[in-house]
Amino acid sequence: MTANTFNETAEGVYLITVTPFKDNGDLDLASTDRMVDFCLERGVTGLTILGIMGEATKLTAEESRQFVRQVLARVQGKVPVVVGASAAGFAPMSELTKSVMDMGAAGVMVAPPSTVRTDDQICSYFDMVTETLGPDVPWCLQDHPTSTGVQMSSSVVLRILKNSPTCVMLKHEDFPGLAKLSAVRQAIEKGDLRKISILTGNGGGLFLPEEMVRGANGAMTGFAYPEMMVDVVNAFKAGNVERAFDIFDCYLPLAKYEQQAGVGLAVRKHLLAQRGAIASAAVRKPGPKLSALDLADIARLVARQEKKLAALG
Amino acid sequence: MTANTFNETAEGVYLITVTPFKDNGDLDLASTDRMVDFCLERGVTGLTILGIMGEATKLTAEESRQFVRQVLARVQGKVPVVVGASAAGFAPMSELTKSVMDMGAAGVMVAPPSTVRTDDQICSYFDMVTETLGPDVPWCLQDHPTSTGVQMSSSVVLRILKNSPTCVMLKHEDFPGLAKLSAVRQAIEKGDLRKISILTGNGGGLFLPEEMVRGANGAMTGFAYPEMMVDVVNAFKAGNVERAFDIFDCYLPLAKYEQQAGVGLAVRKHLLAQRGAIASAAVRKPGPKLSALDLADIARLVARQEKKLAALG
Amino acid sequence: MTANTFNETAEGVYLITVTPFKDNGDLDLASTDRMVDFCLERGVTGLTILGIMGEATKLTAEESRQFVRQVLARVQGKVPVVVGASAAGFAPMSELTKSVMDMGAAGVMVAPPSTVRTDDQICSYFDMVTETLGPDVPWCLQDHPTSTGVQMSSSVVLRILKNSPTCVMLKHEDFPGLAKLSAVRQAIEKGDLRKISILTGNGGGLFLPEEMVRGANGAMTGFAYPEMMVDVVNAFKAGNVERAFDIFDCYLPLAKYEQQAGVGLAVRKHLLAQRGAIASAAVRKPGPKLSALDLADIARLVARQEKKLAALG
Amino acid sequence: MTANTFNETAEGVYLITVTPFKDNGDLDLASTDRMVDFCLERGVTGLTILGIMGEATKLTAEESRQFVRQVLARVQGKVPVVVGASAAGFAPMSELTKSVMDMGAAGVMVAPPSTVRTDDQICSYFDMVTETLGPDVPWCLQDHPTSTGVQMSSSVVLRILKNSPTCVMLKHEDFPGLAKLSAVRQAIEKGDLRKISILTGNGGGLFLPEEMVRGANGAMTGFAYPEMMVDVVNAFKAGNVERAFDIFDCYLPLAKYEQQAGVGLAVRKHLLAQRGAIASAAVRKPGPKLSALDLADIARLVARQEKKLAALG
Repeated sequence: MTANTFNETAEGVYLITVTPFKDNGDLDLASTDRMVDFCLERGVTGLTILGIMGEATKLTAEESRQFVRQVLARVQGKVPVVVGASAAGFAPMSELTKSVMDMGAAGVMVAPPSTVRTDDQICSYFDMVTETLGPDVPWCLQDHPTSTGVQMSSSVVLRILKNSPTCVMLKHEDFPGLAKLSAVRQAIEKGDLRKISILTGNGGGLFLPEEMVRGANGAMTGFAYPEMMVDVVNAFKAGNVERAFDIFDCYLPLAKYEQQAGVGLAVRKHLLAQRGAIASAAVRKPGPKLSALDLADIARLVARQEKKLAALG
Repeated sequence: MTANTFNETAEGVYLITVTPFKDNGDLDLASTDRMVDFCLERGVTGLTILGIMGEATKLTAEESRQFVRQVLARVQGKVPVVVGASAAGFAPMSELTKSVMDMGAAGVMVAPPSTVRTDDQICSYFDMVTETLGPDVPWCLQDHPTSTGVQMSSSVVLRILKNSPTCVMLKHEDFPGLAKLSAVRQAIEKGDLRKISILTGNGGGLFLPEEMVRGANGAMTGFAYPEMMVDVVNAFKAGNVERAFDIFDCYLPLAKYEQQAGVGLAVRKHLLAQRGAIASAAVRKPGPKLSALDLADIARLVARQEKKLAALG
Repeated sequence: MTANTFNETAEGVYLITVTPFKDNGDLDLASTDRMVDFCLERGVTGLTILGIMGEATKLTAEESRQFVRQVLARVQGKVPVVVGASAAGFAPMSELTKSVMDMGAAGVMVAPPSTVRTDDQICSYFDMVTETLGPDVPWCLQDHPTSTGVQMSSSVVLRILKNSPTCVMLKHEDFPGLAKLSAVRQAIEKGDLRKISILTGNGGGLFLPEEMVRGANGAMTGFAYPEMMVDVVNAFKAGNVERAFDIFDCYLPLAKYEQQAGVGLAVRKHLLAQRGAIASAAVRKPGPKLSALDLADIARLVARQEKKLAALG
Repeated sequence: MTANTFNETAEGVYLITVTPFKDNGDLDLASTDRMVDFCLERGVTGLTILGIMGEATKLTAEESRQFVRQVLARVQGKVPVVVGASAAGFAPMSELTKSVMDMGAAGVMVAPPSTVRTDDQICSYFDMVTETLGPDVPWCLQDHPTSTGVQMSSSVVLRILKNSPTCVMLKHEDFPGLAKLSAVRQAIEKGDLRKISILTGNGGGLFLPEEMVRGANGAMTGFAYPEMMVDVVNAFKAGNVERAFDIFDCYLPLAKYEQQAGVGLAVRKHLLAQRGAIASAAVRKPGPKLSALDLADIARLVARQEKKLAALG
């Protein structure tokens, strides 16, 4: 793994990390270190923190700062760290951005608020984002209608990217989204749009190989087995398309299980705790809990996954 | 009242009618006649039937045909009758449109389905509507985000109107919507858009005088006192702006009460029954019922309204 | 395959069928026969028609009748046929139900309208459904928040089932929904709820084996390979749980691709046409079209699926 | 005006204040003092700050603290000050609550997050709120489906109030909401629910007299003319119901204009600036701007209102 820069050439896997808590709900900084190491050892090319799956909205302002500082200290610049900065207002967005850039973040990620609907409203909003972040903060446009309710057409995504020279990356998570991914990729190829990095998380990463076929530069999503995404992306880069699908298919049943909205975060933390990446699987309230039946499901899917991976070799 | 045509010159009041039922829930055709007479006597220049407030979705196909036939027979061409034709698919939209045009309707009204979101999706949808209705059916574009969830920007409304030569009217019901109304009106004045008729129902008619100031051609909404809208529109046409506001203000407290989503239809039917326009205030299930407290509210507001109107002279 | 009855003992696979059209968009009755044969030959225990994936809202009333009649004539009572009867009003629901029961349907399926929200509103709505359908029409409760926006808690589902003696089946499609499935199953086991049939379609059938583990009686969803669901359900009944997962995993990548909202129906019809079950893959407007890239994706996934199935034996 | 306590006996008018900014967008602390004086002079019995109309989400954490501190210092305990504490997570809710209670706030106000839907989810959420706030912080339950999307039935409101001994007030803003208000009031009268204070803001205060008739204890909403609400509530308490309606009707046309979602806040700040309560009408981005046509509308409505008030005497 070589150092990577958060700019339009970014590729590989930007992992959306969880935020580790202790069983009593306190922020777990020791586990934060272990989790960072766990990710780096598996070959991720970037980290994205304080996203939805990072329980960002459940942290106090002070906890957010502590967590960002801890991650950045542990990463030591080996990979870029992007911080979620979506906010209902521009003053808090600006405050958070300044704070994390000062600490050493590589850039921020912004999704539209659920209140913008029409093409013009969406584009105006991102004009203000660009102005708020200023000329020195590279940022990633998050397109995730499932959580925001905002549908951005391909032409709107192109307008935003054209209007904002500091936007260097698209986190492509519309679902279904393959057609949009192809439209943006083709606009770049035709020269209608400058080169940007497109990382995908369509359906929680469940379409990663199909997206690589269509020209994605890698993945930005979360999964308790980041090596799956790293291996799939690397197999593609090496030209082994069928191999990439083979690897992916081994993990798909568990990935599908982990991508269940709501309960999925508890599944992910359970697996990460089991793998030793974090000490506790605790999710802050309001949050889901796993039942004995859920745990049995997971155990079966893990066992089957291991068997398949062993067979694949 | 003079005969009016459903085209881009339409003005005055197109009343959204209720659909009368008997106490046992059956369609009440005798009351349909009385209601038509009631509206015509109060000076409406058009009728719009089978809209949301007409409980269209609660009718069987056969009942819809019966009701349309009865209304058209009673109107005898004195004013144009527009029929709501919004549908999830184009085959049923086409079937309904053909059926009502054959019976003598003047045109249809179409709102977008809640599934379209982006500017392009909305415009494509109305391209298909235009194709479905064909070159001979004039139609009214209904812009009512409260019920459809579809936000059409001013520029989208302009695109639809430009693409569809058979669209002759905008039913303007976005809320708040004064800025959009002004934008469409200005586009017509600048010659960017051909002349169309703009009838308003913004907030259930609660902004009628403000909308007339901005260049609306009249109203298309429902209210148990259609004469209010007729008188307000006529006062404007006669240049008596303050008089128009004076009339409107007498009715506003009751209009506000009648515009409560859901329960409002029961209020309207109660008032229409009380005024003799229909025999029964019955609303089909699932529908609201008025409590004794609601009835007392209405009685007070009616008494106060009468007093104010008497004072106004 | 033995004859099955649409009642609380129903099990196996009730396939949600598509509605076949010709390339010109006309209803294709010849393909309707072929499709029915195709399903029956693969061992389905029931058919569900005129659902969302059956493009029900795009048919005229007359086309709906024609299609139902054709399906029933071809099925000849070999398996029960359930007809989607969700409607905005009770009069059209009653009209459609009477019509299809007279033709020989086994029962109907009803989902809540998007306007009901609170527990009480949902339960009241289904009290009216029960009354509307009458004592002689068995029906299936469809719980599909993704399309309806209505969240029914486990306790609400139990209330509805207790209040409605004619509801014999739950089409379980909440997502994530495993916890709810377990809650309903446990209520039956504890005797808190009479026995009903639970058929699942959670996430478009993507959780079928996990649902069988939790006590589902089978599946009610659509897929271009109905034999997958039949084989998975049969493997479970035979006690071969791992075999059931093995079969399922072969199909999962393509099933995932076919379950993409919107475009998925075009994928399904393309596959059905390719398999000879219908003559044309045409989807009525407004509807999705497949691109060359989509077709290439599908071809790869089909080839991989065939290889896996061959290896599984 | 006598001192009032924020508990179950609260009545009168708790005004939802704006947050004053300078033309350059900075927080305007001098205007904060003037605005507090303006409200106190008009007889409000409480203030509610950092609500939606207070642009709370557009403030940095530090600005929020500054504003709360300034308001509390100026109020000097003359009336209770309630602070909006709705948050996506309980850690930030707890942090904000502790902070404002330490500064001298009387209590907090909490609305449900848009992610809870079923009765059980809503009640569980407020159990956690009660636990988070602890036994010493009195709070107000905000029921505002228009902004939250959460529909709480009367029975859910009763369950929440029963489960939470520290909830002393219901901010009743469901729309339409008269039936719910009556249900809660009747539960208190029957002894099914302990006494709580019910302040209303139904439709932005547009139903204040109807709500007083049904037993509301006063109003909690915003309006550039707080004296309207004070006078209406006092007239009711004095038994002059028709007088209360008369006062209300003078203000209704402007209140209606000010309650337009989105643009309404700009209208309110324009009026407050015009009345000398704040120095600048600036709204922080993203926010609405008034057009010349809007300003003309407002000027007409103000002139007409003054004339009516003079006539009323």
